[in-house]
Amino acid sequence: MSIRIGILGYGNLGRGVEKAVNVCEDMELVGVFSRRDPATVTVDSGAAVYHVDSLPEMTDKIDVLIICGGSATDLPEMTPKYAEMFNVIDSFDTHANIPVHFANVDAAAKASGKIGIISCGWDPGMFSLNRLYAASVLPGGKDYTFWGKGVSQGHSDAIRRIDGVIDARQYTVPVPEALEQVREGKNPELTTRQKHTRVCYVVAEDGADRARIEQEIVTMPNYFADYDTTVNFISAEEMKAEHSGLPHGGSVIYSGTTGTGENVNTHVIEYSLKLDSNPEFTGSVLTAYARAAYRMNQAGDTGAKTVFDIAPALLSPLSGEEIRAHML
Amino acid sequence: MSIRIGILGYGNLGRGVEKAVNVCEDMELVGVFSRRDPATVTVDSGAAVYHVDSLPEMTDKIDVLIICGGSATDLPEMTPKYAEMFNVIDSFDTHANIPVHFANVDAAAKASGKIGIISCGWDPGMFSLNRLYAASVLPGGKDYTFWGKGVSQGHSDAIRRIDGVIDARQYTVPVPEALEQVREGKNPELTTRQKHTRVCYVVAEDGADRARIEQEIVTMPNYFADYDTTVNFISAEEMKAEHSGLPHGGSVIYSGTTGTGENVNTHVIEYSLKLDSNPEFTGSVLTAYARAAYRMNQAGDTGAKTVFDIAPALLSPLSGEEIRAHML
Repeated sequence: MSIRIGILGYGNLGRGVEKAVNVCEDMELVGVFSRRDPATVTVDSGAAVYHVDSLPEMTDKIDVLIICGGSATDLPEMTPKYAEMFNVIDSFDTHANIPVHFANVDAAAKASGKIGIISCGWDPGMFSLNRLYAASVLPGGKDYTFWGKGVSQGHSDAIRRIDGVIDARQYTVPVPEALEQVREGKNPELTTRQKHTRVCYVVAEDGADRARIEQEIVTMPNYFADYDTTVNFISAEEMKAEHSGLPHGGSVIYSGTTGTGENVNTHVIEYSLKLDSNPEFTGSVLTAYARAAYRMNQAGDTGAKTVFDIAPALLSPLSGEEIRAHML
Repeated sequence: MSIRIGILGYGNLGRGVEKAVNVCEDMELVGVFSRRDPATVTVDSGAAVYHVDSLPEMTDKIDVLIICGGSATDLPEMTPKYAEMFNVIDSFDTHANIPVHFANVDAAAKASGKIGIISCGWDPGMFSLNRLYAASVLPGGKDYTFWGKGVSQGHSDAIRRIDGVIDARQYTVPVPEALEQVREGKNPELTTRQKHTRVCYVVAEDGADRARIEQEIVTMPNYFADYDTTVNFISAEEMKAEHSGLPHGGSVIYSGTTGTGENVNTHVIEYSLKLDSNPEFTGSVLTAYARAAYRMNQAGDTGAKTVFDIAPALLSPLSGEEIRAHML
């Protein structure tokens, strides 16, 4: 019997999940759930569209609900709410609020007898796993996370809010020299500015004061002030032709040692991603973990989980015998 | 209370485990167990040395026995035998025999109520995990494993058995062009020869026929015949000065896609290791998984396990709250 999946929220991430579910032979997409009028939502794969209000009537038709909302306001409310009815999974990434979110989802999921996986994707998610595995194997080492080259949607949005800006795309780019030092196991102390640069492409209104826009960008607190930022003004046509994708990626690099004194040996562990589409890869991670949520709940487990709590075998559609034979 | 560790076998790997256990604050090294006369075994950290025959009397003094033997003859016999008495862990790497070894350890460990983790280290081990995670997230992709640059002890031993050879060291080296194609997501079909080259350093006896030795190496079936192999004759002094370490490493690279038709997106996942000491890193992995073996058994679980069956959080000495706060 297939694992029956519902998708809540149909933006870039929801579309990524849809594509991932549709290539999993052990899954079936029950439908997409939206806060919009279903008649106005066109679904790429032709799956059914429902209004979010119909979810409570579908608890016997969905095994796992994949919640594709924003971390700022959607997920803190949605994930605990729907954990009262379904096994759920989200990509909550507001780091400081993870303990509260975990506690809220845990209480709801334990009460309902369901599983709620939070903070899944690639960071938090696959990158977190690699930080944990490396630190567990080589205690006392140091981890570095580099992001990019890739589009930061949050930073792109921040530029779009500046007066006179029509469209913007911001690329986060690791500093090659910093990457190189870390890969060599030198454990450098790096400031924010030394780790990443920010490259912006901006479509400005005709007659807008470009010098003022550039100044507003490079001095923007939290987003740009602590980085070396480059601003390029381009046409709307060039934006569409050259910058319509959402590539991303990055590396987690961990350097640790074994032995003591003159016999110290250094080991460098690196996990890196080069993604043509950030939302499609994130959707694929969520989908694999949805399989785990279903299986854990079938086995009687309940409550909030993160990628740390989930045995890798639970992600694979293959049997234990098959993965031992082909992947071990 | 500390996790009480025993080490069975005191070669390079046993020494690596000893170093790893000694930096884990939640572990205590009870002793090293050897088939040799304990009086002849000098232990680096000053831990107690026992004859292997005393193990059955120490079942209440050891929580996890880390078995550091060879895959050819030691582990198939030792791991099931000691799983009858202890939680055990090994680095069994004879791939074709994993199903039989797993079944033997599973039967013994289930009967005794213990955990037996097999095939742990970096390959099989951390590399296996990365093959599984990647294939689960992006079904239908292709994985490549490259080893090196690093010393292959099996290949070095094979050369040493040739008549006229005093000492030898063999480095496995990935072919840069092959690595590059794979990293670009091109999914090339690669023969054995196209993936790795083998570079050998040989100390020959005075007056030995070097041309004959070289010919015997490069034509040796299974070990060298399918590779481009380079043989360098060096002095015993140069061997000691330049080739006394046991560095190794390599990469698992997985390339997969999302989307269909014109909207296909390619994603490349790479996990790579650069290890100054292969046995010390392998020993560190075994030690982290020994912690998991103990915890799983404390929670009531029994039987054979691999890295696929073990939730990552079980490897860390930190609490769930701590890892969510600092690594997620």
